[in-house]
Parts: sequence; C-alpha cells; structure tokens
Amino acid sequence: MGKKVVRLGLFGLGTVGRGIVELLQRKNKEKGDYEFVLEKIAVKHLDKERPTSVASRLLTTNHREILENPEIDTVVEVIGGISPAKEIILEALKKGKNVVTANKALLARIGSQLFEEAIKNNCYLGVRASNVASYRLIESLAFSPFQIEKLLGVFNATSNYILTQMEKKGQSFSSVLEKAQEIGYAEEDPSNDIDGYDTAHKLVALLSLAMGYFLPLESVFVEGIRRISYQDILFARELGYRIKLLAIVKRRDNNLEARVHPALLPIGKEMAQLEGIENGLELRDEVGVEVGIKAPGAGKYPTATAILEDLICIAKGRKLILPQQRKHLNLKKMGEIESEYYLRFNVLDRVGVLAKISGILGNHNISIASVIQKGKAEKSLNSVPIIMLTYEAEEEAVQDALKEIDALSVAKGKSLLIRVEEGIL
Amino acid sequence: MGKKVVRLGLFGLGTVGRGIVELLQRKNKEKGDYEFVLEKIAVKHLDKERPTSVASRLLTTNHREILENPEIDTVVEVIGGISPAKEIILEALKKGKNVVTANKALLARIGSQLFEEAIKNNCYLGVRASNVASYRLIESLAFSPFQIEKLLGVFNATSNYILTQMEKKGQSFSSVLEKAQEIGYAEEDPSNDIDGYDTAHKLVALLSLAMGYFLPLESVFVEGIRRISYQDILFARELGYRIKLLAIVKRRDNNLEARVHPALLPIGKEMAQLEGIENGLELRDEVGVEVGIKAPGAGKYPTATAILEDLICIAKGRKLILPQQRKHLNLKKMGEIESEYYLRFNVLDRVGVLAKISGILGNHNISIASVIQKGKAEKSLNSVPIIMLTYEAEEEAVQDALKEIDALSVAKGKSLLIRVEEGIL
Repeated sequence: MGKKVVRLGLFGLGTVGRGIVELLQRKNKEKGDYEFVLEKIAVKHLDKERPTSVASRLLTTNHREILENPEIDTVVEVIGGISPAKEIILEALKKGKNVVTANKALLARIGSQLFEEAIKNNCYLGVRASNVASYRLIESLAFSPFQIEKLLGVFNATSNYILTQMEKKGQSFSSVLEKAQEIGYAEEDPSNDIDGYDTAHKLVALLSLAMGYFLPLESVFVEGIRRISYQDILFARELGYRIKLLAIVKRRDNNLEARVHPALLPIGKEMAQLEGIENGLELRDEVGVEVGIKAPGAGKYPTATAILEDLICIAKGRKLILPQQRKHLNLKKMGEIESEYYLRFNVLDRVGVLAKISGILGNHNISIASVIQKGKAEKSLNSVPIIMLTYEAEEEAVQDALKEIDALSVAKGKSLLIRVEEGIL
Repeated sequence: MGKKVVRLGLFGLGTVGRGIVELLQRKNKEKGDYEFVLEKIAVKHLDKERPTSVASRLLTTNHREILENPEIDTVVEVIGGISPAKEIILEALKKGKNVVTANKALLARIGSQLFEEAIKNNCYLGVRASNVASYRLIESLAFSPFQIEKLLGVFNATSNYILTQMEKKGQSFSSVLEKAQEIGYAEEDPSNDIDGYDTAHKLVALLSLAMGYFLPLESVFVEGIRRISYQDILFARELGYRIKLLAIVKRRDNNLEARVHPALLPIGKEMAQLEGIENGLELRDEVGVEVGIKAPGAGKYPTATAILEDLICIAKGRKLILPQQRKHLNLKKMGEIESEYYLRFNVLDRVGVLAKISGILGNHNISIASVIQKGKAEKSLNSVPIIMLTYEAEEEAVQDALKEIDALSVAKGKSLLIRVEEGIL
C-alpha cells in the first residue's frame, strides 16, 4: 500500500500555528505510513518577521487559495475568534475538506452546526485542541455507556496561574495579573480568561462531545475571578480550602446544572492541587466510576500536539463519530441550585453587627457552619471582614440575604460570595 | 437507518461477567441507535448459584455453542488466564467475530499475534478492560505524534491497597495482606498481584498499544512488594518519600528501560498520592508534554464499563487502528540502569560498622546522600537497621556492593534495596 499523504492548508501562523509548522517538520522526518504536506498558510501580513522559518511561497493573504485548491484535503484553523473562522470552516466542510480546529469559542456557539456539516459531507472534524487539557478523556467519553453525574474542570491556565501566584506570593489580584501580562501568561485584554468565558466555551464544547448535549452558551452561568482577594485565599486556606475557577456540571435524572465560577475546594482534593498553568478534569458517572486527568491547559506544544493527533486520525482514516444524543435535559436556573457558601462581609466594627447579619441569614433559612472575625478596625470608620461558611442553602435565598445585608448602614462595600464544592477525587 | 444490533457471546460469569450482564440490562433500557443482545454465556458449571439473575437458557458449558453460532458477531472474554482464553479468542477472530477481552496476561504474551489476526479478519479487538485505570489515555496515545520519553504507572489495586494500609494502620505486610484477603481485595494466591506480574502484564500491553512496541514479557524486570516492611515505609516518609509499586518506562533515542518494582516517590508527586485501590498513569513525551490520569484500577463496574465502551465502539462501527510501529528499541539490561537507591542494612550494633559499609559503597563508586541510624540494639546480638539514600549509581555496582556487605560477619539478614523515582507530575 502506498503512503497516505495528507495535504494541509493552515489558517493562522501565531504561536500555535508556528508550533504546528515546527512539529510537522519534526514529524515528517520519521518514516511512517503517512506524510503531511503543508501546501499553503493563510496569514494577515506577508511581510511580518516570523521566528519559525517558513518558505515565503507557502504564505498567502488570500483565503481562496486554500479553500479553492482541490489538492488540499485538510484545513487547520488556528486564527481563533468567530469570523472569519466560521466562514472558513463551513466552506471547507462543504467542499469536502477535513477540518481541524482549536476554536472553542466557535464550537461553543455553533458546534452542532459544524458537526452536522462534517457528517453530511463525510469529513473529519477534529477539535482536540479546543480543550487541550482534557481531550484525551473527552475522546473516550464519547463511547462511555453511562451518563456523567458530576464533572469538575479547571480549564483556564491564565486564571489558575493568577490564583496560584496570589497564594504563593501573597499578592493582590491586580498586581499578579500585571506580571502575568508582562510574561505573556495573560493577554492584554484578559477578560476572556479571567472572567470565565474561555472556561464556559470549553464547558459547552465538552458537554456536546462527551454527552451529545448542545447547551446554548448564553444559558451557562459565568462568573470570573476578579473579585477574589488575597485575603479570601488566606481565609479559605484557614478553613481548609483553596479557591479555583471551576467548570461544574451536575446531572440527576433530567436535571442539569452547568456553571462556571470560582469555588472553594477542600485542599486535599485533586482539582485543588492544580498549580500554575496546570489544568484538569474529573468526573463521576452514573454507576459511580470516577476518573480524572491532569495536563497542561495551554502552550505552543500541547496545543500543536493536539492538532497533530487529529491530523494523524485523518491520516489513519478514522471516521468522525459523535456520542449518542442525550434526551432533553432541563437546565436548572442559577437561583435554584444548592450549595455551601463562603461569604465575606465588609462591615463597620460596631456592637451587634454579627447578630444583625446572622439574623438576616437565619430569616432566609441559611445556617452558619463557621465564622471568622479577626482583629479590630484601626479607626471607628474602617471596615473589618467577617467570614462565614454556610451549610447547604439555596442560591436565591443567599442572594436575597446578601442584598439585605449590603443595604445595612454598617455595610461598607458589596459582600462577596464564593460557592463551595466538595470535589470528586 | 435501522437499529444496529450487536449479538454477544460471553465467556465467563465471575464478578466482571456479572457486572457486564447487569450493565447491559441497564444500558438496553435507554433508547439508542444500537442494542446489545446477549445470546449465550459460557460457564464452567451450569448449576452454580449466581447472584445476578440470568435466564438458564442462556447458559452453556459448551464453547462451541458460541464459537460456531454465526448469529453471534461479538465475543466477550472474561475468564482470564492463558488457556482456553487464547484458543477462544483466536478462533473467534478467525471466524470473523469481534472480540472484547480483559485478558492482560494473554495480551502481554501474544498481543502481537492477536492484533494481527484481528486486522487480517477485519475484526475489532477491544482491550480497554485490560488496563482499566489508563485505557482512556492509552486510546489517545495510539494517535500521539510523539514518542513517550518517560512513563510511570500504578497499575495494581491490590498492591497499592496493601501499601496504603500498611502506612495508615502501622501494620506489617503479612497482617495487611491477610485482611485484604478476608475482604476480597487480595486473592487467595496473591502472587500475581503482589509480586508484580499483573503490573508487568499491563506494562507490556500498554507499550504495544501506546508505542506500537511489542516487548517480550520475559525481558521485563519484575520485583514485587513482599519485602517492604512498615519500617521502610516510616523511613521513606521521614526522608520525604512514599513507597509505590511502579511500572516504569524510560526511553532516550533507541534505548528503552521497562521495569516493575517498588520505588520511593517524593510524597508531593501525583503517583505518590494514589491511595487504596486508586490507580494511575502519567507520562512525558519527547516534546515535553506531560499528562496524567487517575482512576479505579479494578472493580466490577470499572471493568464492565471498559468492556461496554469497547462494545459501543463496535456498535458505532469504529475500526481497529494500531499505533505506528516504532523502530527497534534496545532494552537496557537491569544492571545498566542508573538510579538513586534507598538501602536498608540489618547489622549488629558494633563499632565501625557504618565505616565498613560506607567503605564498600565508596569502593563501588556509590555516594551516600543521607543516613539514618536510630536507637540501639537491646542486646548485643540484635541487629539495628541502617538506612542510606544514595546519589545516582549504576544498578550493577549497587548489587555488587550489597553482596559484599551481606557477606560481612556483622550483617544479619539480606539488605534491602528500593529504587528511587523522581516522578513526573
């Protein structure tokens, strides 16, 4: 049998694109039963200086040169964003080209349409690179006989790096963010990472790949880590917890919770121990089998490696197989979820304040498990933090209670709520 | 399109077999685009009492009723052992039936032949259940563009349970083993688990699945955990380590190390934190990407779930694809490996003993990193333990030195050597 040759058109030559070029060169040196030929690379500017050596005849600014070239059987998209990535991928699939993409934002929005188009045109659609940390597990989940009961993920390297550094260095969120931006661990506009959107994209894409369930992105509750202070990290540690930005899925019967927010996790748990840019995923299925994976969440080589794995699937003739579509699930409203809560109140150091707060919580059926109140305000007008850990309560009741407490005359600034997760492994 | 029906013949109705029957019943209640029909179950005795309700018309003691039934397209083998499992699987494949097996002992011996036969007859050969803890990762490794540089696995639930209990309860190996046997965590003849053979089987199967490299089972160095004492666990902890039974693979260029033995791992490392029946696998590839997985290593549901995942692959028409065969690798002889070592000497409490031992080690170019010598022998004829941690040394030199030391008149009983591994994640 002859060697299988895969002819590639690459869209994007940023960090990941360059990683792909580099790894393809390295890979092609091995003698295998397949070979990758990079036919064309679409870039924005032809004359930009590039650290990876690429023959200039490969570069083009004209997408048509890839999309309309019948020799190119496989398109790799690593430009990111919605447009023109969406148009490129859809046209490539319609033309019968295989597509490999790292685009989680797009998958989270129109994943269902993309997979339909791929199936219709008998193409492979590789999306490993859209969730670098956990694709090895997701790949297998598509064949899992049982539904997920609970899933927790740490999917954003930037956020996890910031939270880890805050704890290690004893620094504020903003000063750690600034340093992360300096060394390239956070983008100039960090919102996508630190406000939880990237994690939400990965969560929605994962649900479709692992559970055959396409959840509308807008319906996922998303909260980021901007309001976490070093103080919260210290209090959490005192209580035996570490704060992580989590993707959370819980399913019982047809009721689903899917949310992204920072959470207190018991320090001994796997997800609590992920440090810096490490990411991870753990889950429990309906027959109680628990499994977890830990891997780098980002980076040139991890992402490019994920892309290459999809390319090798194409070379080896693997067909796209989607998980069984799960019957309709009811997404719980955020107000309906139940959780334990970490609450931080900033109040004036006055007699009776603790009684007032406890009273309001009690009126809303919220029981307090622990309280930390330390030190005194230096001046009578300065606020002191009061930390409470509640027993399980309904989110809506907690939100209502916080509104009442924040309206008290002794309250200085908005209270902070962080949900508590018990973890799996 | 009609529903895909997979007609099954099951060999074996032990714990795992019953788990499969139970989960198939549960799975078939869901409406999916495929269905599993259990046509026949081959058992040893028809009249045995069974906790799972199985229609007696399904049972047979005659293998021919499954192998010669053309209606049955898929055979599930969970009887274990070499014969008749080998003959059953080979005949099933030759007859064009798909095969799903949990048989690591067989895979480690004739995996290459089984996969060849499957490919030749265009059958699926599912082996997820042969390495329950790590198949989700292995599955993906078959498409990995890069070779493994280092791999560590904790693959035996019984051994890990025993080591964990020894540490937690402060008990001896033999008393923990006895209790494990009582509660069914260890078999009556525990050798396969505690002497490392099960781990070696899984290691060899994994190498073939993940690296396309079929290593002869006999060439793998195997050492079990029988000689580990509670004392060693305590000394290891004092030095910052935990003792685990590890499968170890290291590759540099064409040189391969593949071995199974207990090892000291730094306490903070992932593999050191696996408790009880938890198993795990971690690896680093040649471009430096590190990934780890943690999952139950055994049990009715985890194993049966792995079998069902293979059955779903069959139902969905997934084809068997093997990893690219790697070029020939040279397996290092055990004497050639280099490692740090934990050494326990049992010697009479006499003047000059420490100097003698250090002298012999020095003569063999072995440098000592730490020494622990505690307490005094109660009587002059009792031995005391001396613990040493060495810097990196060659195995052969260490073995030679130990022989010399054991021949000293002050030596009481054979010295113990445990290799030290730095871990990955």
